[in-house]
Amino acid sequence: MARNTFGKNWAVTTFGESHGAAVGCVIDGCPAGLPLNTAEINAELARRRPGRDGGAAAVSTPRAETDECEVLSGVYEGHTLGTPIAIIIRNMNTRSSDYDELKDIYRPGHADSTWDAKYGFRDYRGGGRSSGRETAARVAAGAVAKKFLIENGITILGWTESIGEITAPDFGAPDFCEAEIERNPFRLPSKDVEKAAALIKALRTEGDSIGGVVRCRVTGLPAALGEPVFGKLDAALAEAMLSIGAVKGFEIGAGFAASRLKGSQNNDINANHSGGVLGGISTGAPLEFRAAFKPVPSIAMEQQALSKDGAVRLISIKGRHDVCIAPRALPVVEAMAALILADFVLEQRLARVNLPPYADGHA
Amino acid sequence: MARNTFGKNWAVTTFGESHGAAVGCVIDGCPAGLPLNTAEINAELARRRPGRDGGAAAVSTPRAETDECEVLSGVYEGHTLGTPIAIIIRNMNTRSSDYDELKDIYRPGHADSTWDAKYGFRDYRGGGRSSGRETAARVAAGAVAKKFLIENGITILGWTESIGEITAPDFGAPDFCEAEIERNPFRLPSKDVEKAAALIKALRTEGDSIGGVVRCRVTGLPAALGEPVFGKLDAALAEAMLSIGAVKGFEIGAGFAASRLKGSQNNDINANHSGGVLGGISTGAPLEFRAAFKPVPSIAMEQQALSKDGAVRLISIKGRHDVCIAPRALPVVEAMAALILADFVLEQRLARVNLPPYADGHA
Amino acid sequence: MARNTFGKNWAVTTFGESHGAAVGCVIDGCPAGLPLNTAEINAELARRRPGRDGGAAAVSTPRAETDECEVLSGVYEGHTLGTPIAIIIRNMNTRSSDYDELKDIYRPGHADSTWDAKYGFRDYRGGGRSSGRETAARVAAGAVAKKFLIENGITILGWTESIGEITAPDFGAPDFCEAEIERNPFRLPSKDVEKAAALIKALRTEGDSIGGVVRCRVTGLPAALGEPVFGKLDAALAEAMLSIGAVKGFEIGAGFAASRLKGSQNNDINANHSGGVLGGISTGAPLEFRAAFKPVPSIAMEQQALSKDGAVRLISIKGRHDVCIAPRALPVVEAMAALILADFVLEQRLARVNLPPYADGHA
Amino acid sequence: MARNTFGKNWAVTTFGESHGAAVGCVIDGCPAGLPLNTAEINAELARRRPGRDGGAAAVSTPRAETDECEVLSGVYEGHTLGTPIAIIIRNMNTRSSDYDELKDIYRPGHADSTWDAKYGFRDYRGGGRSSGRETAARVAAGAVAKKFLIENGITILGWTESIGEITAPDFGAPDFCEAEIERNPFRLPSKDVEKAAALIKALRTEGDSIGGVVRCRVTGLPAALGEPVFGKLDAALAEAMLSIGAVKGFEIGAGFAASRLKGSQNNDINANHSGGVLGGISTGAPLEFRAAFKPVPSIAMEQQALSKDGAVRLISIKGRHDVCIAPRALPVVEAMAALILADFVLEQRLARVNLPPYADGHA
Repeated sequence: MARNTFGKNWAVTTFGESHGAAVGCVIDGCPAGLPLNTAEINAELARRRPGRDGGAAAVSTPRAETDECEVLSGVYEGHTLGTPIAIIIRNMNTRSSDYDELKDIYRPGHADSTWDAKYGFRDYRGGGRSSGRETAARVAAGAVAKKFLIENGITILGWTESIGEITAPDFGAPDFCEAEIERNPFRLPSKDVEKAAALIKALRTEGDSIGGVVRCRVTGLPAALGEPVFGKLDAALAEAMLSIGAVKGFEIGAGFAASRLKGSQNNDINANHSGGVLGGISTGAPLEFRAAFKPVPSIAMEQQALSKDGAVRLISIKGRHDVCIAPRALPVVEAMAALILADFVLEQRLARVNLPPYADGHA
Repeated sequence: MARNTFGKNWAVTTFGESHGAAVGCVIDGCPAGLPLNTAEINAELARRRPGRDGGAAAVSTPRAETDECEVLSGVYEGHTLGTPIAIIIRNMNTRSSDYDELKDIYRPGHADSTWDAKYGFRDYRGGGRSSGRETAARVAAGAVAKKFLIENGITILGWTESIGEITAPDFGAPDFCEAEIERNPFRLPSKDVEKAAALIKALRTEGDSIGGVVRCRVTGLPAALGEPVFGKLDAALAEAMLSIGAVKGFEIGAGFAASRLKGSQNNDINANHSGGVLGGISTGAPLEFRAAFKPVPSIAMEQQALSKDGAVRLISIKGRHDVCIAPRALPVVEAMAALILADFVLEQRLARVNLPPYADGHA
Repeated sequence: MARNTFGKNWAVTTFGESHGAAVGCVIDGCPAGLPLNTAEINAELARRRPGRDGGAAAVSTPRAETDECEVLSGVYEGHTLGTPIAIIIRNMNTRSSDYDELKDIYRPGHADSTWDAKYGFRDYRGGGRSSGRETAARVAAGAVAKKFLIENGITILGWTESIGEITAPDFGAPDFCEAEIERNPFRLPSKDVEKAAALIKALRTEGDSIGGVVRCRVTGLPAALGEPVFGKLDAALAEAMLSIGAVKGFEIGAGFAASRLKGSQNNDINANHSGGVLGGISTGAPLEFRAAFKPVPSIAMEQQALSKDGAVRLISIKGRHDVCIAPRALPVVEAMAALILADFVLEQRLARVNLPPYADGHA
Repeated sequence: MARNTFGKNWAVTTFGESHGAAVGCVIDGCPAGLPLNTAEINAELARRRPGRDGGAAAVSTPRAETDECEVLSGVYEGHTLGTPIAIIIRNMNTRSSDYDELKDIYRPGHADSTWDAKYGFRDYRGGGRSSGRETAARVAAGAVAKKFLIENGITILGWTESIGEITAPDFGAPDFCEAEIERNPFRLPSKDVEKAAALIKALRTEGDSIGGVVRCRVTGLPAALGEPVFGKLDAALAEAMLSIGAVKGFEIGAGFAASRLKGSQNNDINANHSGGVLGGISTGAPLEFRAAFKPVPSIAMEQQALSKDGAVRLISIKGRHDVCIAPRALPVVEAMAALILADFVLEQRLARVNLPPYADGHA
């Protein structure tokens, strides 16, 4: 079974290796008549790119990815045709030689050894298909899904909730500041990012990295999205989040904290402990979820690694890698959420013999 | 898109409402030649059933589920045929009248309101399709998958890691006792379950409930299972776990704790912070994951609820419901893990032009 | 990849072997709110059953199939819930001993040898899963789909177009008589079925069988059903028809005759050479297609067969088998067409950003 | 449900409109380690191209398609990686202005009217996504599948069996000449193509077109490919063939002729009336099937057409279109067959608990 397609009604197939000719996606299932232009996709791609300012330099990667996409199909006269939308993003400035000495070494925390075990053959340059580079294709696909969601009144907002032990103000707290998210390189919803900046700087000097948590909140969802058993909205989101390379945990609503609550506490109809999903179906309250990112495994600090022949070697990963991937992965989190939601908005059209009326008057 | 099927190569479709004639499953993709008998499936169903002992009474439900399944197809002379295996479990002792007065009330924490929003029509008796009853079908399907995994040398072990704030000994700790798991009603890996028993008893008296965490460990996996991008093994497990009614969080390996670690700590090649998965593919180390369960929302204690007409009402849920669902859901966790793993064991047969040799000599 | 599910939005999984406990289906994707009762399904099952009259005796099989189904799930208070509808039909009067002497012989024209080659293990009793018995499950599923189509104004009419060289009046000809179809055992649309009766009788005496053609005409379809490339309506119908055991050919509209026409003839906008499909999408004209059935391979006449050890043996198939399967397969043809059409009616709800208005005022 | 993907284990998604930037495909499921280079794909694309010689001019289209593909991903150092293989073919020399006057006219026999009914919005230039141009992407995907099949000892041979009433020598007849197929512009397996040449020439002069039949024969198949119920090999081939624009009929083995045979004739174990498939599973005998092509609907001769506003108009289609599409569609037939077979070769790896041994010694 082929496994590079994500989604059912709104299905996205991605392709491409880090150091191949291009990465890209095919969006199959976007309905006809959606206004769409390439600039909208490029704008989302730009959000994924490192290098916006001095701070951002601290979260950059070895490659200047000036990602401009090309839309090959599915759009005509500024509107979607209902046919597959193919989008490619060329890989530029790929310095394959950076990876020559890692050819026979399995970098710790990477898919190097598992890939060899699986396929027996590997493009070792920059992680090949397992590279974060692949997520550019998802962000492009997500940009189209976001456009569709906006037409349906649905908005996605993500931010960095924590970097290591540093935690951002909670949503709704007085110092939570949405406008700041895209203004600082850490995507923290706060005017005070000094501590985060100091931590990142220190780790960079040490050649180390750190984990973080991304939080996401979706508003404007109708009650009804998601399927009762295997197509639960939160299960789909969990899969979507864990499909992002460095994600190790997922929570919907209260998440693990709910395991420590009593029923009388958790049931509170005025709280949103459920995170906007009950029985796998959206309640109409804001959807709230979190994804935990592990520290970037590519560190400059010397570390032990296994080589192909089984020996333990000391290595140091070259190049300028992200110290904390969470802020830069945030557009990927949003994109994956958008893909799920677009899929389920379409799905809900199939739920009843007679279509239910929607807010805008069309059924 | 129909959404009651789980898995691709090893695909399971479940059906059935809590108070309908039966719940059941169709397993499509189980290879021909697997030894299988009904008793093996019933044994797993018995693990899901409440009422094993005095302690278990504390985690029981209103229904005596003496679940014996009937295998309708796919098995001949004690072996699977390669055709779909249909299994049904009749619903007995369904006291629908228990639910009459809840017909127009949306129980907090349940799928009642969302179901109405979605379909406009609902079988309100015991949650209908959203009932935990549906998981009996998954356990039956999981029993067959486990049989297949055992043939492949793969073993799944689950236990209750925590009930509320009470935490079991960690795996590998001196007081971690695997043999105790199935001996106490809480499925704690410990000889000392006094505190848990006291907590459950107190909550029962109060008419309240509590959350918990289930942990699962899989051994015997070859390195190679899982697909690099959208079919990541951990993403599939996350979806599988969140597809269980009360689950609100998922962690693979270090999980959320990884978000607080440095790269130099997390990369340690002697630890298993990855939980046995790198880049979505199994490493050959034990697979380790957790699922967080919210407290059972059906509580005897009086609580606020919304009625169909929008009014706030005070209700008290009748019947004997579980105080903590985690122990009883454990076989469901294992079953869902087994379905994923059986799917991926088959998937790996498709990865190479020439099939790789396996440990037992067959390719 | 599991292959016992048919359809995407309206997905039907069938299960069951000829001489196992039951055959059945799970319908996943039927929208909520469709009026449905068991009698409607049994009525379609009765159409598939042999033995209606003296003539029908000529088209009977060794088993008296008094097929009454049981609906296990998905229906509540006379309406569909939107959840999977599981239906089972018990296998009665299965005389397995009839097949004992065929255990090691591959009946010509049957799946016996191919099944052994594929799975290495086989339920040889009555063809097992490859038996026509499996189509009872399809007819049950088709009955539900037909109900949905009727709600959408769509009607399916099938008839026997030919038995061997005997051809029925063409649709629209003066002697074409729709009312006769269900009145004669051959389902010929004609008051004059003497020749057919004589042919069947003669072949029965000889212990031989004969092929036939079923034709199907669907009216009330909106223009728009079907997808432009891989989901073409006619391609889906072709697959559906060839999925019926004895079908060897399929034609949409003019079919093979179109290969002998000129463009200037075939393009005629007043004819319906296209059969109601252009570019894979319904035109709004009646959908017209044909399925060719081979002669029933189970014949009483002595014939050569290969045995498991490779030797050629002379065999004579016992029991009362159909002489021409086409008339009795007609409800299966209609059922498969209904499944496709229900799938595509739902699919069309996904085609546009804003849903198009339909004739009945709902979008 | 997205419908631009074909196949399950070997899944191909195509994209692209006739007059957009490019057409292309993503192959998901090709195993790792297959030797592959771009020239092999271009060689198959060249077979689909018109203009090989004087005769071929008679079957040309308005566009000089010098199709050279670009492989964007999935191949590294001359071998497949096991990741998606994305291939694009740029659209050159697209003279959109040819179609300006057809903007509001529905060409007879084309998908123009049905597309508008479906999507309400259309790229009318050259048929958009419904153009035969899309099949270039399938031929590229098929080239890779053929490579995989050759590794498995499977060979596909197609030829033109008839053009209008002119029929080629039957396979096995003394004048059947395989070597001639690629030597004459009609792909007839014969040294004598005078009559066909005269017919095509005459029709071209008249501004008319003609239908034809393509026949295909696959050798080297193991007994075992195909699934017993919904994944029948012949059903999959039927769907594959009808997914080609102009195909109106499909036959496996004896096809419609079988409907006129007696069981005692059709069962002959020395003939191959079944066409190499019994019960949906390959027998090991050569696979034999036919696809009937309607006459090309784009004719220069004046004809009636409906315009968007419902009026009947007289039109004459400009440009140099194929007179008979069958010969040029032959590589598409082969490509689609190759995709099905690659899918099923992989599928068979999933059939047994222990993998069966294959001829080449690997399991």
